[in-house]
Amino acid sequence: MSLTFYYSPMSTAMITDVVLEELDMPCERVVIDLKKNQTHTPQYLGLNPNGKVPLLVHDGTPIWESVAITLYLGEIFGVARGLYPVPGPERGAAMKWVAWANVTLAEAVGRWMRNTSEYYPAEQHNAKAAEAATADIHQCLRILDQALTGRDFLLEGFTLADAHVNSVIDWLRFMQVDLTPYSSLNAWSQRCAARPAYGRAMARAGAAVGA
Amino acid sequence: MSLTFYYSPMSTAMITDVVLEELDMPCERVVIDLKKNQTHTPQYLGLNPNGKVPLLVHDGTPIWESVAITLYLGEIFGVARGLYPVPGPERGAAMKWVAWANVTLAEAVGRWMRNTSEYYPAEQHNAKAAEAATADIHQCLRILDQALTGRDFLLEGFTLADAHVNSVIDWLRFMQVDLTPYSSLNAWSQRCAARPAYGRAMARAGAAVGA
Repeated sequence: MSLTFYYSPMSTAMITDVVLEELDMPCERVVIDLKKNQTHTPQYLGLNPNGKVPLLVHDGTPIWESVAITLYLGEIFGVARGLYPVPGPERGAAMKWVAWANVTLAEAVGRWMRNTSEYYPAEQHNAKAAEAATADIHQCLRILDQALTGRDFLLEGFTLADAHVNSVIDWLRFMQVDLTPYSSLNAWSQRCAARPAYGRAMARAGAAVGA
Repeated sequence: MSLTFYYSPMSTAMITDVVLEELDMPCERVVIDLKKNQTHTPQYLGLNPNGKVPLLVHDGTPIWESVAITLYLGEIFGVARGLYPVPGPERGAAMKWVAWANVTLAEAVGRWMRNTSEYYPAEQHNAKAAEAATADIHQCLRILDQALTGRDFLLEGFTLADAHVNSVIDWLRFMQVDLTPYSSLNAWSQRCAARPAYGRAMARAGAAVGA
């Protein structure tokens, strides 16, 4: 079995990094320097034509999109480790949260960034669109906070769905989205961050960027 | 076993409609009138706090996000019907295309709509952002067209990944995105649309909206 993980520390590929660490999966890690455009070499584009991280290559098959990677690793390696439900409705609930994090929550955050952040040309910004995106982000955060009220994790016990969604929340925190109103969400996020696997992934990322 | 599908004809819930039809799944279909705001009743929000279609309720568990629903139905009902790969790298390839359609392709299309369409307030539009979104859409279409060059379907034989991704392409067609440059994509889309299940789903949607 061969597993190769292409990623950049402190990018959205950290979602997959934390998932792999939770699974304690031995894999070859290839650090990609986004500033050197290393996702756009012919070799890399041959594996992921989108030119993005994360990318997982499992026994020769490239798999992109962090949603797909989390669900893929979950079903193959997560069940035996107690980190992913067996097939059935509980697994469906895990899948909906993982998909929601990238399709709905991350779309709103990405839209907000495109309308406010210096990562995107100022001529593409629109203050009214940024306001609408902010409202959508907080609607998502209310949904997540509500879902976590009165429970420790998204499902029964910690799963890869928590690892995945919390890593997206980390991205919001990094982008300085105000999370203070969401007490259940914050308590859950602290539980996720207290896990040894999370600490190992963060320590490696910090070392890689010289933090 | 109970399966209830909440959807609106001619909405993006058609993705799930086509998938259910391909699986020939008996289910209760509940038509939601978006114009009457029926996704925002307390009862509906209790099932899907996002207030959106599609929504699938399987044995009492609500599952939202069309990516999650397709992958969920695929693994439970699709393998025996020869419409979804068994666990392993080929399934990973199915998962990556389904996730890509909603996370990457649909994000670019949604962004283009938000900057051009009358569905969104004109004060939120930005012509430069619309240009960037258009470029991103066509980059996605080139990737899909390239992946389909020299082959009939995304994987070996037709799968739910084709049904799902082609339904997203239908949405682009409806939004009048120019698909003419993509000959492999168009030939594949015709193969998907020639399937009896696709015809049945479209006929039902057409009848529901009085077309």
